[in-house]
Order: sequence, then C-alpha cells, then structure tokens
Amino acid sequence: MNDFDDNNSIGIVRTNKFVLSTPENIALDCGEKLSHIEVAYETYGSLNKDKSNAVLILHALSGDAHAAGFHSSEDKKPGWWDNMIGPGKCFDTRKYYVICSNFLGGCKGTTGSNSINPKTGKEYGMSFPVVSIKDMVKVQKELIDFLEIKKLLAVCGGSMGGMQALQWSVDYSDMAAGVIPIATTATLSPLSIALNEVGRKAIMNDPNWNNGNYYESIAPDAGLAVARMLGHITYLSDEAMRNKFGRRLQKNEEYRYDFEGEFQVESYLHHQGTSFTKRFDANTYLYVTKAMDYFDLSREYSSLEKAFETTRSRFLVIAFSSDWLFPPYQAKEIVKALRTCNKEVSYCELSSSYGHDAFLLEEKHQTLMISHFLMNLEEEYTSK
Amino acid sequence: MNDFDDNNSIGIVRTNKFVLSTPENIALDCGEKLSHIEVAYETYGSLNKDKSNAVLILHALSGDAHAAGFHSSEDKKPGWWDNMIGPGKCFDTRKYYVICSNFLGGCKGTTGSNSINPKTGKEYGMSFPVVSIKDMVKVQKELIDFLEIKKLLAVCGGSMGGMQALQWSVDYSDMAAGVIPIATTATLSPLSIALNEVGRKAIMNDPNWNNGNYYESIAPDAGLAVARMLGHITYLSDEAMRNKFGRRLQKNEEYRYDFEGEFQVESYLHHQGTSFTKRFDANTYLYVTKAMDYFDLSREYSSLEKAFETTRSRFLVIAFSSDWLFPPYQAKEIVKALRTCNKEVSYCELSSSYGHDAFLLEEKHQTLMISHFLMNLEEEYTSK
Repeated sequence: MNDFDDNNSIGIVRTNKFVLSTPENIALDCGEKLSHIEVAYETYGSLNKDKSNAVLILHALSGDAHAAGFHSSEDKKPGWWDNMIGPGKCFDTRKYYVICSNFLGGCKGTTGSNSINPKTGKEYGMSFPVVSIKDMVKVQKELIDFLEIKKLLAVCGGSMGGMQALQWSVDYSDMAAGVIPIATTATLSPLSIALNEVGRKAIMNDPNWNNGNYYESIAPDAGLAVARMLGHITYLSDEAMRNKFGRRLQKNEEYRYDFEGEFQVESYLHHQGTSFTKRFDANTYLYVTKAMDYFDLSREYSSLEKAFETTRSRFLVIAFSSDWLFPPYQAKEIVKALRTCNKEVSYCELSSSYGHDAFLLEEKHQTLMISHFLMNLEEEYTSK
Repeated sequence: MNDFDDNNSIGIVRTNKFVLSTPENIALDCGEKLSHIEVAYETYGSLNKDKSNAVLILHALSGDAHAAGFHSSEDKKPGWWDNMIGPGKCFDTRKYYVICSNFLGGCKGTTGSNSINPKTGKEYGMSFPVVSIKDMVKVQKELIDFLEIKKLLAVCGGSMGGMQALQWSVDYSDMAAGVIPIATTATLSPLSIALNEVGRKAIMNDPNWNNGNYYESIAPDAGLAVARMLGHITYLSDEAMRNKFGRRLQKNEEYRYDFEGEFQVESYLHHQGTSFTKRFDANTYLYVTKAMDYFDLSREYSSLEKAFETTRSRFLVIAFSSDWLFPPYQAKEIVKALRTCNKEVSYCELSSSYGHDAFLLEEKHQTLMISHFLMNLEEEYTSK
C-alpha cells in the first residue's frame, strides 16, 4: 500500500500549463525579456464562490509544482509537501484552494534554462537571462490573475519558497491576507553565497558542462552530484547526521583504508547526488542558486523596514532551532523589521534536530501553527 | 618592513630532514609498510641540559614543519603559527625547545603520496598506503627518539594537530607531561566526514586527477581549488563571514547578473582555492582528509574513557565558541572522558567569532591559557 490509499491523500492530481499572453510585459531585473513564458502549476481543492480561499504554496530550490498527491495510481512518491497538503491536513483541501507552480527558471515545466528558445529552436542553456526572486514572483502574479483570484488568503513557502513569499508581501502589498515565510531569510548570507558558489564551481568545472551546452551530449552529472551532496549537507544538521548515520560503516566492520566511501553518511550522499542528476538540470542549478544569492530585500528597498512599509499582510514567521543555513536569527531580523513598521507578525522558533530540512519534515508543529493562522485569516478575510 | 625585523621573531630558520633508520618497524594501521620514510622538521630555541624543555607542535591539514620564523631575509611570510612561537611569545623560544614536523603522508618534505617510491622511481600517487593519525604519531615518536628526548614537556596542536596530540597522550602515555588539544575532537563527526568527501569528490572528478597519476602532466587544480574553497568556508563562521565580507560586491555597485562571482566572498574563495593549488598536492588532500575521517579514539580503545585510562599527562583542552567544524561540545566530550578517568584536565572555551580558524588567530587568550599551563608543567617536571 502506498500513501495513495490513505484517506488523507488528495489522490491523483495533474500538472497544468499556463502560457503568459504578454510575456514581454515581464521586465526582468537583469533588463532582459523573454518572448515566451510557460508556467507549470497544480491546484488542489476547490476555489470557493467569492474566491477567498486560495493559498499559494511556493517551492524551494529542487521542488516543483507537484506539491501534493500522486500523478498516477502506480506513482510511489507523492508531491514534495504531501504531509502538509490534503484533506484534513495543514493546508486542508476541503477548505482551501491550494496552488503551487514551478518558478520561472525552473526545470520542471516552467520556462527555464533547459527550455527551447523559440528564436533558435534549441535549449537556452547559459543564454537564458539570470532571473531573480522578484521575476519569479511577477510570473506567479500572472498565474494568479489568470486564475481570476483578486486576493490570496495566504502565500507560504519554506527556504527559497519563503523568499518568494516575502517578495510577494512587499511587491503586491494587498494581494495576500497572510504571509508565511518558513526557514528563510530576507537577505542571503555570505555563508550561503559561498556554499552556492562551491556548488556552481563543481558543475562548471565538469568538462561535460561545456559552457552549458550539453543538451545534445552528456550532462555534467558528476559536477551536479557534488553540488547536490554539498547542498544536502547544509539541509541537515550536525545532530541530525549523528542521529541518522553516526560513524557507522556501510557494509564492513573494519576500516577498509581506501577511497570508496565506506561510511554510511558517504553512501547516503553519493546516492542523493546521483539520484538528483536524474531529476534536475545542471544549468538550472546555476540559475536558481544565483537567484538566491541576489535576494536581498534590504538592498532593493534600502532597508528591510522600508521594504515592509506598505504591506497590508499579516505574517507568521517560522524558524527551526537547528537550521544553520537560515538560522533563527535571520527570521528574527524579518520579525523585528515587521514590528518596527507596526505590522502584525507572529514568530515561532520550533525546536527540531532536523536542520533546514525541518520545514519538510516537522509537519505536526507546523500544522498547529499554520492551521490556526489560516483560520484567523479566514475570519478576518470574510468579515471584511 | 616585514615581521622579520620584529624583535619577537625567531628570525631565520631552516627545515631539517630526518631519515628513519628502520622504517619497516612502522607497522601502519592499514597493514602496509613503507621502505623509506623521511621527515621534514624544524626546531626553535635550545634543548636544555636535562632535555626537559621540549615542546612538540603538531600541524593541521594544510600546515607544515615551518611553524615559525622565516626561511630567508627576503621571505615575506613567516611560519604558520609565528604569532604563537618565538622569543617572548606563548611558546617562548628563550625557554622552550620547540619542534614541529610535517606529518607522514604530508606533501611538505615528509614522505607522502607525492614522494618518490624507491621501488618504482616514480611518485607513489594513489599507491601510497592510507595512513592514519596513529601512523603519523608513530613517525613523530621516531623523530623525538632521534632527538634523544625522553619526555616532552608538552605536545600541542589545533584541529588535526589536536587529534595527533590526543593520539600521543594515549599511545605514549608517559611521553608528554602536558597535552594541549585545541579546536579538535576525539572522534570525527559524520558532518566532517561528509564535508571531506565532497572535497575528495571534487578532486577525483577532475579529469586531470587521472587516478592520481598527474605528476608528469597537469595537476587537478580546478578540483583541488573547489575542495579548498569548501574547506575554507568550514574554517570560518557565519558571523566571521558577515563581518569580513557581508554582501559587498567586488568592483561593481549594481548586480551584474552573471556567473563570474561578483560578491567579495566569492573572489576571496576563488583566490584561496587557486593559491592553495600552488602549494599543496591534490592526492595528499585525499590522504590527509581520509586520515581525519578514520580518527576515532573511542573506536580504537572501545571507549574514550578506556583510551585515556593509562595516560599520565595533564591536559589543557581549548575550544572556540563559533567553531562549527569542531564545536565545543566535542571538546567537552574529551574533558568528560578525562575527568571520568580522574585525569588532570583544564578546559577553556574561548569566545571568538573567527570559527575554527580561531586557533590560528586568537593568540592573546590562547597565550594566556597555554603559557600558564606550560609554567605549571615546568615546575612539576623539574621538581620530580
């Protein structure tokens, strides 16, 4: 039995495609424009009559539009946030209309580096413009307009999804009743930039990368695998790794004194690295990490307080105690700036040993926090 | 004026070479033996009449025998711990006879992967045996015997040097009056193993690595540079990087939206990576990180308490608050085990924002702690 038979699963879902009618209206931060933009998205639950129950979920680096449910009855693996989205779950699909789209520059159905450039008939590769979190949000706004939703009940995302949620709150100050940034930051730290750059170098050093022109030859899988291995380490915590792997060896009892990677933590990372190359595009990894690096709301608006000045959203900010990639102090900076502007904000630092990955794993406490926040938003929204 | 003119410099020093007369007596942990072992070492100060003032300094991953002073009057850069070793400094060369040797498997004069295998007349490359911290210490013991020192006043090292110091204390339980492990651990964590493996993969993925056979062609500099970039990140701290680089751009004021690495933290790491390739051997990086991975005193002696049971040394254990590679809790595990066995141990957690690198930078507080510890040892040693 897979989770599909679970009564709490949304069941079979499908990915929809939306094509922007006027992509030239999207002025990208880098100054360029795209002549064609497609967006892959999924929706769960039903939009109510007054269209007041829509929740936009925003995914992280390696996620996609498939946030919940299964693509077929044979499908073994549900969407990436299936533990949080479905009937009776945190984002209860009996009550809410949940939307999730692959972001601009992604490789899961939305236009990105591995899409065909209509002007050349070939993949963009590194000729794709460097897109920003703001650009991604602009495209999401087009999708919400297309779905004829005037105001979202909430926007919510973890990690890079949280950056998009914050960007929504400042760029479309009256478009979301509630904003839920989880395990995220308003300003990417130099530590994160540095780690991203190591991952990018690993990809770009791979001779198969070939300046991004590998779509008709061999992909730079070895480089992408190293980048993913490093990424994965940063999503865990020291404690999580001690609990999960310790210093256990994979097969042998005695040290082998070789370079095959005999510790369990090594084989785990090898597996994570290799399997990632089967579902992700190396150029996209470069673009997405770069979008994160450039994310800095304080810079864009001269200060974080200025950024939040006009927002009319209420906030629930969540951080995890052992997250060292986006540590709680970064969430507190968001909270402090919001409080300085007299915005309504609740902050919750959840205790967890899972590190950054906690936003994907700690459903119980997140559900408690978020479902209450959503209920309060509903009351407020409908009483208006 | 360089530091050479400083009165506190030990001045010009030279690296000596010691050749083991019976290298076959060194039974390596992996089961192999080496037919020839050379050791590069330096000494500063003078050995006193009763040979009771010798301090052995043990270096970390990228260090070498050149711990203090200059190799010539034109030399711009002193040894790696020059701020701690010299007349009037922490390891006061007017009082102590300071010894530092490049460890077995190193690439700075002691036999290692890039040395000539006498049996083939060519560099060992990956045919070099996988050496352990214990093996390194065995070779250091030969050097100390050769110098006709019966008992060291102290052994001291930071990071991987601290591992060697701990190994000294358990393998030669009466050979050092004092042991000073700094910013280190008795058991490498899975997080550190994971990070080491990412670095190794980056090297081994480089086509120039060629299974370690690159000494007559082009070295895998790109891979080694990535490994070093990652290493360097782990030596700093989130706070140190925010203080040192923030999100400052290198030259431009506006984002360039490209992949050249425009943040200062990126150019710093590029520079660190590239310059490292000029002074370090890629195969050696593989061997040295592997020696660290295998380091686990609890495993070797069934428990950490058992490991320390017979030692007759006194300990000063130092950790740094922001060190996330070898966090203070790992130092406390050493301290706890020593206390359980009723050994004399002082523990000091120094507050520093420098991360793991603090052991190289925080000379003031370390000097205070260590110089007092050494003075007490002297009194005890000479009163015996």
